[in-house]
Amino acid sequence: MKALKILGTPLELRILPVGNFEILEGAARLVGFPRPLRRIDSIAEAGDQTTGTAILHVELDATVPKGRVSAAAGKHAYQIMRICSEICLRRKGFGLVTCPINKESLQEAGFEGKGHTELLAEFAGVSRVETVFCIRDLKIFFLSRHVSLRDAIERVRKAEILQAILRMDRSMRELGVERPRLAVAGLNPHSGDGGLFGREEIEEILPAVSEAQELGMDVQGPIGADAVFHLGLQGRFDAILALYHDQGHIAAKTHDFFQTVTLSLGLPFLRTSVDHGTGFDIAWKGIANPESLIRAVELAVELMRKRGGKIRTKG
Amino acid sequence: MKALKILGTPLELRILPVGNFEILEGAARLVGFPRPLRRIDSIAEAGDQTTGTAILHVELDATVPKGRVSAAAGKHAYQIMRICSEICLRRKGFGLVTCPINKESLQEAGFEGKGHTELLAEFAGVSRVETVFCIRDLKIFFLSRHVSLRDAIERVRKAEILQAILRMDRSMRELGVERPRLAVAGLNPHSGDGGLFGREEIEEILPAVSEAQELGMDVQGPIGADAVFHLGLQGRFDAILALYHDQGHIAAKTHDFFQTVTLSLGLPFLRTSVDHGTGFDIAWKGIANPESLIRAVELAVELMRKRGGKIRTKG
Repeated sequence: MKALKILGTPLELRILPVGNFEILEGAARLVGFPRPLRRIDSIAEAGDQTTGTAILHVELDATVPKGRVSAAAGKHAYQIMRICSEICLRRKGFGLVTCPINKESLQEAGFEGKGHTELLAEFAGVSRVETVFCIRDLKIFFLSRHVSLRDAIERVRKAEILQAILRMDRSMRELGVERPRLAVAGLNPHSGDGGLFGREEIEEILPAVSEAQELGMDVQGPIGADAVFHLGLQGRFDAILALYHDQGHIAAKTHDFFQTVTLSLGLPFLRTSVDHGTGFDIAWKGIANPESLIRAVELAVELMRKRGGKIRTKG
Repeated sequence: MKALKILGTPLELRILPVGNFEILEGAARLVGFPRPLRRIDSIAEAGDQTTGTAILHVELDATVPKGRVSAAAGKHAYQIMRICSEICLRRKGFGLVTCPINKESLQEAGFEGKGHTELLAEFAGVSRVETVFCIRDLKIFFLSRHVSLRDAIERVRKAEILQAILRMDRSMRELGVERPRLAVAGLNPHSGDGGLFGREEIEEILPAVSEAQELGMDVQGPIGADAVFHLGLQGRFDAILALYHDQGHIAAKTHDFFQTVTLSLGLPFLRTSVDHGTGFDIAWKGIANPESLIRAVELAVELMRKRGGKIRTKG
């Protein structure tokens, strides 16, 4: 509600919050939301009045305790996600912006080992969803994510890197960048310093980059990981391939913890998300930082506009 | 000279540039240095007039070509370093601030495989010099630096981490922090998420942190690497142990490329340094960014003051 308050109601922004009306009304009071909310029970009722004040209501099965893990909260979050997916899957021109959910609550509710992205992929019936980090105009792609650093190194192979570069190029074009300028980070300190400490750059990364260049991509690398993200943020690259989870995450989060937004590629609809957790320790205190959610909405709007779709987002 | 120009001549700052007088005079003209320079040939001549305009002159053996690798430049850099070390080793109250040198030029001059820090250690007759990153008030220590990422993972062992925490605590106390608040970064994504991807956190890092806590250290960890540096920069920790080179480097350089300064611990004198290269591609264009050097001088002054020594630095 704080994010919606700050976003205001620009004419071009059509936004439909989905959630429990009473909970959202309570949050609205907490943050001093300046306009009255209206409960609607179907998307048809919204009409063109999607200015963030018409709330698509989702019934609670049980009371959700505030600021702690609970099956009730997990189930409610699941239902909201399910409804949002259905809207986006059935209707053209809808994109989805997701707030954080709590994995432990999902687990309590019986959705073992699943997160937001896995569930959305399941609803949409797709097998592969790629997570991309967006900071300002830079996109960060990942060769691997939730694997140990040891396993991540094992995946630094020419064939996998080449595929990742090709996917990155295609995705960037789909996002409206005509000739994406790409870079690949190095794995070892100073990209191995000519093989002095680590040979992956020579044996795997450089051959993959060279082959991608021969295929016509505008790609450079390996570039030392302590420089490449800085260069990207300066505007030298449109997208960078991080070779392991923390490489891209440290860069993004240390640069600006609240401005990082994740974008999911591979779903039939556009989806952006905040990149932080639920913050149970500050629940209902009114002190949460809404920057990442605001950025996630803005990015969704920007990308939907490039796709030429109507813009409707869910906070 | 640009850094000296910006630093000006505050009364408390006593600074003695060491280098070739003609080269530095040329640089002074290039950047519009506002005061005349004076050549001195011994430290005694400087007297109390160390306001950055008295240059301790170092003769050139051969002409140094501008903006490219050369044995002449390597040898000249070596001589300057040697002279500065001698001053700092023989006289109390001197600290050293170093500009970047070019490793290939050093190599051409016959100093194979040696960098600044290795040479300074050699001059001082010490076997171990620790490099610490300083960004704002945060210090970043490293478990390993110039080894491959694969080898760096092998060094993530309880005994080594415990030693590193103890050294970090001692160093921070020597730097004037009475009760240092320390943190150790995780190795795997989300610190392994309870062993789901990677067990180093459970088997090596946490036991080392626990033992350090039992020994009375104020240390926390492992904390996910994408959060710990952000928390440190927010002021939650005084020092963080990075488990591999790029972990700390990505954090520092992406946060603020030009504000990172390195501090050498283990030498008999204080030494800070810029953390960037020679930038031959922009040599003598007057466009180099002096921020890191200015920060290096300011940090040296700040630390010398805490030590209670007289402040004399070399730019």
